[in-house]
Amino acid sequence: MTTITSVDVVDVRFPTSLSADGSDAMNKDGDYSAAYVILHTDDPAVRGYGFTFTIGRGNDICVLAAEQRAKPLIGRNVEEIIADLGGTYRDLKSDSQLRWLGPEKGVEHLAMAAVMNAVWDMAARKAGKPLWRLLSEMTPEQLVDVADLQYLSDAITREEAIAMLAELQPTRETRIAELEASGYPCYTTSAGWLGYSDEKLRRLLIEAVNEGYRHVKLKVGANREDDIRRLRIAREVIGWDADLMIDANQVWDVPEAIEWVGALAEFKPLWIEEPTSPDDVLGHAAVRKAVAPIGVASGEHGMNRVLFKQMFQAGALDFCQLDSARLASINEILAVYLMAKKFGVPVCPHAGGVGLCELVQHLSIFDYVAISGTLENRVTEFVDHLHEHFVDPCIVRDGAYVLPTQPGYSAQMYEASLAEYAFPNGSYWASVAAVASSA
Amino acid sequence: MTTITSVDVVDVRFPTSLSADGSDAMNKDGDYSAAYVILHTDDPAVRGYGFTFTIGRGNDICVLAAEQRAKPLIGRNVEEIIADLGGTYRDLKSDSQLRWLGPEKGVEHLAMAAVMNAVWDMAARKAGKPLWRLLSEMTPEQLVDVADLQYLSDAITREEAIAMLAELQPTRETRIAELEASGYPCYTTSAGWLGYSDEKLRRLLIEAVNEGYRHVKLKVGANREDDIRRLRIAREVIGWDADLMIDANQVWDVPEAIEWVGALAEFKPLWIEEPTSPDDVLGHAAVRKAVAPIGVASGEHGMNRVLFKQMFQAGALDFCQLDSARLASINEILAVYLMAKKFGVPVCPHAGGVGLCELVQHLSIFDYVAISGTLENRVTEFVDHLHEHFVDPCIVRDGAYVLPTQPGYSAQMYEASLAEYAFPNGSYWASVAAVASSA
Repeated sequence: MTTITSVDVVDVRFPTSLSADGSDAMNKDGDYSAAYVILHTDDPAVRGYGFTFTIGRGNDICVLAAEQRAKPLIGRNVEEIIADLGGTYRDLKSDSQLRWLGPEKGVEHLAMAAVMNAVWDMAARKAGKPLWRLLSEMTPEQLVDVADLQYLSDAITREEAIAMLAELQPTRETRIAELEASGYPCYTTSAGWLGYSDEKLRRLLIEAVNEGYRHVKLKVGANREDDIRRLRIAREVIGWDADLMIDANQVWDVPEAIEWVGALAEFKPLWIEEPTSPDDVLGHAAVRKAVAPIGVASGEHGMNRVLFKQMFQAGALDFCQLDSARLASINEILAVYLMAKKFGVPVCPHAGGVGLCELVQHLSIFDYVAISGTLENRVTEFVDHLHEHFVDPCIVRDGAYVLPTQPGYSAQMYEASLAEYAFPNGSYWASVAAVASSA
Repeated sequence: MTTITSVDVVDVRFPTSLSADGSDAMNKDGDYSAAYVILHTDDPAVRGYGFTFTIGRGNDICVLAAEQRAKPLIGRNVEEIIADLGGTYRDLKSDSQLRWLGPEKGVEHLAMAAVMNAVWDMAARKAGKPLWRLLSEMTPEQLVDVADLQYLSDAITREEAIAMLAELQPTRETRIAELEASGYPCYTTSAGWLGYSDEKLRRLLIEAVNEGYRHVKLKVGANREDDIRRLRIAREVIGWDADLMIDANQVWDVPEAIEWVGALAEFKPLWIEEPTSPDDVLGHAAVRKAVAPIGVASGEHGMNRVLFKQMFQAGALDFCQLDSARLASINEILAVYLMAKKFGVPVCPHAGGVGLCELVQHLSIFDYVAISGTLENRVTEFVDHLHEHFVDPCIVRDGAYVLPTQPGYSAQMYEASLAEYAFPNGSYWASVAAVASSA
C-alpha cells in the first residue's frame, strides 16, 4: 500500500522572451512557463509529475489553483487512485465551489490539467510503462470509463464510443509495430516565429527541409505585406510539394479573417490556424466555409470538451489541435478524440511551449493505435526548444516522433532546471533581479 | 490631479452554506464570497470599489488575479483614466501573458470584472452620480467607444450600435421619469432554493406574493418527483396568472434536459434556466427548439461576449441573463446589451449572491433608458440576502428596484463587514477556527 503524502507545485519560468522564440501576432513576449506538480508518496520510488503550460505572468495563479485542486489527493491510497482514474478525476472536479470559477475553463481548468497529468504520469510509472502503452493496453470499456462524457451525449454515447474502440482493438499491435519502425509524423514551427528576421527565417527553413520535415508553419496576422514576403520566402525554400501552414493566433474578427486569408491564398496554405477568437464556434464555421479549400485549424485555446463538441457539430474545423495542458488530462482528452473520430476530424495536437511535445507524442501514438487507426492528414506539432530540461525528452528523427520507452508521461523535469528557473527565487531569476537592482 | 496610489483586494466570505441559502442542484453548499477591490488615491475623497462574486473556495485565487490585473493602474492619473474608460480597459486586457490563461474567461476574467467594476464605480463617484445616470448621460459615440466590440463585427458594427443608441437618445429622460415613479420590475429567487423544506417554500412563496412579486423562481433538477411536488405547491400559492420560472443550474445533458423539462411542462414555466452546460450554444438552441413555448434562459455563467454573440446568432436564448461580475464590467456588458437589442433578446440579468443586486439595478435601468426602451418580457433577479453589508444597498418596493441615488456603482461594503468576514482572519472566521481547534 502506497499513500500520497504531499504535493509540491513549482512556478518554473524560462526567459524565452529574450530571443523572440514563440513570438506571434498576439503573443509578442512570452516567457514559457509551467505550473509543475510533483505528487510525493511514502514510497520514494513512486512519484507523479505533471504540469500546465503558461507564458509567464499568472503562472503563480495556476500554481495556487493546482495546490488547492490537488489537496484532496493527500492521504489517499495510490493503488486505489490508479484502479479508478475516472473516479479520481470526477472526485477532483466535483468541488462545486471551485466549479463556480469556470466551470471547466481558464485558470481552474489549467490547474486541473496539471494535477491530473501528474496522476496519469504516476499511474504509468507505477505500471512501468510509457503512458501511450498503458492506454493502449486498456480495454474499450476501461477507456470509456475514464473518459469524461458529461454534456456530450447529444454527440456521442458510451455505446458508440465502446464500439469504435472495439473495432480497432484486435489490430492495435500491428500499428504499434509500424510506429516503432517509422515514428509518428510531425511538423515544425521552429522556423516561423514572427520576431525572426527574413535571414533567420530562410536559414531555419532550409535546416527544416534538410532535417526531413514535409510540413512547416509560419505565424501571420500582424502585417499583410510582411506575411506575403515571408510566405514567398517559405515557398521558395520548401517548394510546392511540402505543406505550408499559417497561424494567426486569434488576431482577426471573422470578416477580417476571411479577407486576409484570401489575400494569402496564392501560397496555398494547408490550414489557417486560430483565425479568430478560440471561443467562436460559429465564427470558425463561417471562416471555414469562406476560405475552402484552405483548411481551418484550432484548439490550442479550446477550453474544454463542450467547445470541441460544438466545433465538430458545426463543421467548424478541418484539424483539431487540442492542448494537453489546457484540457483536463487524459480523461477529457479521450472524450475529444472519441468525438473527433466520430465526426471524421483529424487531431493534430498543439505542442511547443514547455514540455508539450513530451506529452503530445503519447497522445498521437495512442490515437493511431487505438482510436483513429490512420495517419492520413495527421501531423503533430514539434518545436525544438527547452527539451533539455526534461529527464525523458522527446526524440524527433526524420520529421517523426520516436516512440518513448521510459515509464510515465515524459513530464519530469531535472532538479537542476527547477533550481535554476523556479520563479522568482531560482538562481537565474535571482541573478536577473540582482543585476536589475544594481543597475 | 488625482493619482491612484494603491490597490487593496480583500477576500470576503459569508457562511451562507449554514442556512442552505443559495442551494441548487449543482451548488449544494456555497459560501457567498467576493474578491473585493478598493482603489485608493492621493485624495481621500476619491476611491473606487468593485468586486467579483464567487461561492467560497478559490476566492483567494481571484484575489491574487485581481491584484495582478490592477497593478498597471497604480501611479496613473484618475482624471485620465476616467476620460478614456475604453482605453483603460483595453490597456488592462492587453497583457498577453495573462491573456494566455483564458483568454477572457475563468479566474482571469472574474478578476478583470472586479477591477473594472471598481474603475467604473470610481468614475461615477467622481462625477457625483449613480452609475446608471453617468451612463445615461453619455452620447451614443461615447458609449460605443467604451464598449468592447472585438470579435463581434460579424454580429454588430460600430455604426449599427451608434444608430440604435441614437434612436432612443431624445427620449431618455421620459423613461428615467417613468422608472423614478415605478421602479424597475424584479422577481425573487429567495423562496425556491433546493435545500428548503416544503413548509419553508410555501411560507416564503406566500410572503413573496404578499410583497407584490408577479414572478418567482424555483430550483429544479436534483429529483424529478421533488420538482413536481414543489412546482405544484408553487402554483397553488401564486396561481396561474403569475409567472413561474425554473432553474436547473447546468445539471443535465441536452437530451436529458429536453425530457425532464417536458415532464414539468404542465406547470407552464416561463423559462427553464441553465438547462445544460453554459458553454453549449448549440445545446441551448436544441433545447429551446424542443421545449417551446417554454423559454430558455442562460447567462450567469456566460463567460464572455463571444459566447453571447453565438447564443444570439444561433437563436439559443429567449432570455439573456448576463452576470455583472463575470463579464468584464460595463465595457463588455455594453457590447452584450447592444447585441441583445439587435437580435431582439430581452436581458434579465442574473443577481443574488453578494452584491450582484446592487450592481444589476444600474444595468437594467440604463438598458431601459438608453438601449432597449422597453420593459416587455424584462424582469431582473432579486434575492433578499446580504444587502446589510452594503453602504448603499438596493431597495426593492412592490416587486421593483427603486432607482439608486448615491454616487457610484453601489458596490461599497461596510468596513465592519470586511473586518468580520475577511477570510481567514476576520473576526467571524477566526472564531470559527478557534471553535474548531478547541473541539
